[in-house]
Amino acid sequence: MAYGYWKRGFHEKEAAFQLFFRKKPFNGTFAIAAGLESAIDFLKNFRYQPDDLSYLATLTGTDDKPLFEPAFLDYLSHFRFTLDIDAMPEGTVVFPYEPLLRVQGPIIQAQLLESPLLNIINFQSLIATKAARICYAAQGDHVVEFGMRRAQGIDGALSAARGAYIGGCHSTSNVLAGKMFGIPVKGTHAHSWIMAFDDEPASFEAWGEVMPGNLLFLVDTYESIRGAKRAIETAKKLKAKNIDILGVRLDSGDLAHLSIEIRKLLDEAGFKSAKIMASNELDEYIISDLKHQGAKIDLWGVGTHLVTGKDQPALDGVYKLSAVRDNKKAPWRYKVKISEQLVKVTNPGISQVRRYSNDEGFVGDMIYDAPSPFPKNPVAIDPLDPTEVMEMGEGYTSTDLLVPIMREGKVVYMPPALSDVRENTLTQLSQLRPAMRRFLYPQPYFTGLERSLYDRKLSLIQEAKKG
Amino acid sequence: MAYGYWKRGFHEKEAAFQLFFRKKPFNGTFAIAAGLESAIDFLKNFRYQPDDLSYLATLTGTDDKPLFEPAFLDYLSHFRFTLDIDAMPEGTVVFPYEPLLRVQGPIIQAQLLESPLLNIINFQSLIATKAARICYAAQGDHVVEFGMRRAQGIDGALSAARGAYIGGCHSTSNVLAGKMFGIPVKGTHAHSWIMAFDDEPASFEAWGEVMPGNLLFLVDTYESIRGAKRAIETAKKLKAKNIDILGVRLDSGDLAHLSIEIRKLLDEAGFKSAKIMASNELDEYIISDLKHQGAKIDLWGVGTHLVTGKDQPALDGVYKLSAVRDNKKAPWRYKVKISEQLVKVTNPGISQVRRYSNDEGFVGDMIYDAPSPFPKNPVAIDPLDPTEVMEMGEGYTSTDLLVPIMREGKVVYMPPALSDVRENTLTQLSQLRPAMRRFLYPQPYFTGLERSLYDRKLSLIQEAKKG
Repeated sequence: MAYGYWKRGFHEKEAAFQLFFRKKPFNGTFAIAAGLESAIDFLKNFRYQPDDLSYLATLTGTDDKPLFEPAFLDYLSHFRFTLDIDAMPEGTVVFPYEPLLRVQGPIIQAQLLESPLLNIINFQSLIATKAARICYAAQGDHVVEFGMRRAQGIDGALSAARGAYIGGCHSTSNVLAGKMFGIPVKGTHAHSWIMAFDDEPASFEAWGEVMPGNLLFLVDTYESIRGAKRAIETAKKLKAKNIDILGVRLDSGDLAHLSIEIRKLLDEAGFKSAKIMASNELDEYIISDLKHQGAKIDLWGVGTHLVTGKDQPALDGVYKLSAVRDNKKAPWRYKVKISEQLVKVTNPGISQVRRYSNDEGFVGDMIYDAPSPFPKNPVAIDPLDPTEVMEMGEGYTSTDLLVPIMREGKVVYMPPALSDVRENTLTQLSQLRPAMRRFLYPQPYFTGLERSLYDRKLSLIQEAKKG
Repeated sequence: MAYGYWKRGFHEKEAAFQLFFRKKPFNGTFAIAAGLESAIDFLKNFRYQPDDLSYLATLTGTDDKPLFEPAFLDYLSHFRFTLDIDAMPEGTVVFPYEPLLRVQGPIIQAQLLESPLLNIINFQSLIATKAARICYAAQGDHVVEFGMRRAQGIDGALSAARGAYIGGCHSTSNVLAGKMFGIPVKGTHAHSWIMAFDDEPASFEAWGEVMPGNLLFLVDTYESIRGAKRAIETAKKLKAKNIDILGVRLDSGDLAHLSIEIRKLLDEAGFKSAKIMASNELDEYIISDLKHQGAKIDLWGVGTHLVTGKDQPALDGVYKLSAVRDNKKAPWRYKVKISEQLVKVTNPGISQVRRYSNDEGFVGDMIYDAPSPFPKNPVAIDPLDPTEVMEMGEGYTSTDLLVPIMREGKVVYMPPALSDVRENTLTQLSQLRPAMRRFLYPQPYFTGLERSLYDRKLSLIQEAKKG
């Protein structure tokens, strides 16, 4: 594509692209925007290296000729971004069809970003969203991201740890993620620690000696209740040395029943502040159900379902052209991609998202065309159900969600600390009604197109269908 | 864990670990082993860098003291592997509970590998397996891995491209994966190419001019049949200049109906060798169904479902301790981890897998204890259904599947070229009966434990339950 634009002489031609998703992840209502700082790092460091160019020079077409002229490879060797980019800050609650990110500038540059931006933002947003759901189910309990072993590649694990923390998780077992992103790290010993000793009590005592600052005993290697009793015996001996245990961990079996029984044992033995941690293929549904059953679990280790977004392992984010112009000074021509599938029709123009709130929280979002005059009495129409119309005027406060990230290729945005991003998520989520956060048939949230943008979209569709 | 072993003075203590999965991926029968070469690269390059150690020095426990003594960090700074590792070559067909990889040596070293080995091998094996299923559905048609934009992180995309090629895909749209792994790269233009022009015919003609070696026109930007007619008009003009088109691509709508109609149009216009490519949320089930409906599709672009393993985004691989000894010269003590869940009980010992074949292909696998004397008349027992017993003696040829990879920390295995790995997969899969490859209720494949290993496992379980 880049070669095509270059070869065609589209050096001045400009485009606007929007990055958005269509399907509400996990059958919920919202997603959490994440990945922007990683995308900015990518933008800052993007260069074609000599070995990239030599590789590209080896590619041939069906006619056995090189796909790319040497002059194009030379052009790439000097390639730098001069784009304007606007995006939602990480941690923003976002809904289908709203641009998480908008790119404007030379079409060849904007096009090259399609795959990397989607890769980075789709995945981290997906996992931040899953984490927000899991933490909601955990009702404020500490949730540890435990997924490295089942994550999709090394970077899959690292990006998931980052996304999970943004979405509300408290810590990760991935030490490299701790180092790279400053996420608190937490972990316990594994079954193999127990099995490396002749018997279970010896293994607990040894752990007590070597790790007095992190004493969470995994009790299910052989039999959980027996394991818990042995952990308590060890805890008593440690207490005599003024060492406190953190608690015990269950990784298999009936977590509701076992946690209730083990809670009793801990309490009877005087370890009322000792915690019970649970892991084993947990997700928001199982955590909710365990809470409902009265399980006595204080800490949740969530792995595979969290880091792969198991029930929906991809956000269906796309990056679609919405306007073109012949050069920087020419007027934009707005564009739609139509489809037999209505949900696949794109929105035209240079979109901004305005979010309206009242004292109770967010009430609705309106996508509008940024360069057009803003209407005095804004009205938004849901394009998938035009009978759903909302007047956005009186009595609401409002904020525009997309902020400047890059201007003429220079990064103009300072990403906040990751712990502040996580706080932003929690604040944003507190503005959604509980009915919108529940897992079964959650209440929808209103998002519409500003009326004149809606009308413009309809006429562009008609034109494209004719044309 | 590593700190615990170090602190406890377990410098000589050795362990054996097995990496295996329990659940048949995608409700099929088999998996394809993949990721070994990436794991070997990891093993070769693994070092604690000074900034890793400074980070570890900052970690504190619940007692606010540093988690690790400086002497341990000094030990890590000199850390090198001296392990023995055996593994199945990439492309091997593998079944539940069979070790894909086996590690023996100092317990601290073997333990440290748990997370990275699982991360690398779980994911690539998952995707190779998914690819084998998708390519089986495509019945020999060319399948292009198209998933970068929806993959789980940058490395998720790269590892998936590698796994997909091992599993039988023909090419990838991920150019970096092409460069890094030597996978053939293929791609088409996107909708944005069409939308960057004033009208669709102009965009097709421009593509014909700039990319004569890769002429696959995406025809569904506005309306697929009309798009196809326009692509054919362009193809006629190009033919006059002796330029042949490769074909057209559909990315939405009713792929069965549209491909049949467009095939007619192409044939009538004399473009009988032009191909029709399809994409849009494809997987093995949709491809099978399209084939069944008589869709005229020659090339398949498969993205999200392939690179995320959408219906099961994680292989449930685990890495379990199976034996320990006090030092290199001491006898092994075999270990099992028991569980309330029978499927979670591990196999003890130093396992090897022997695969038996006859003229018709693979007939059954037997997991046996490598250091024990091999029985004269081997009998294998399915531990999950001990009434399933197989005599492995007469009339079969057999091969041991695990081969030496590392001896005393030195890599002794030369990974084959990736195209040879892919060939290995195809050869291996040809040895499975079609009934084992079908998607709905596939025939199971026999895998059992050699009788004396089975007996040993039972007595270890009894012991653990008592103890």
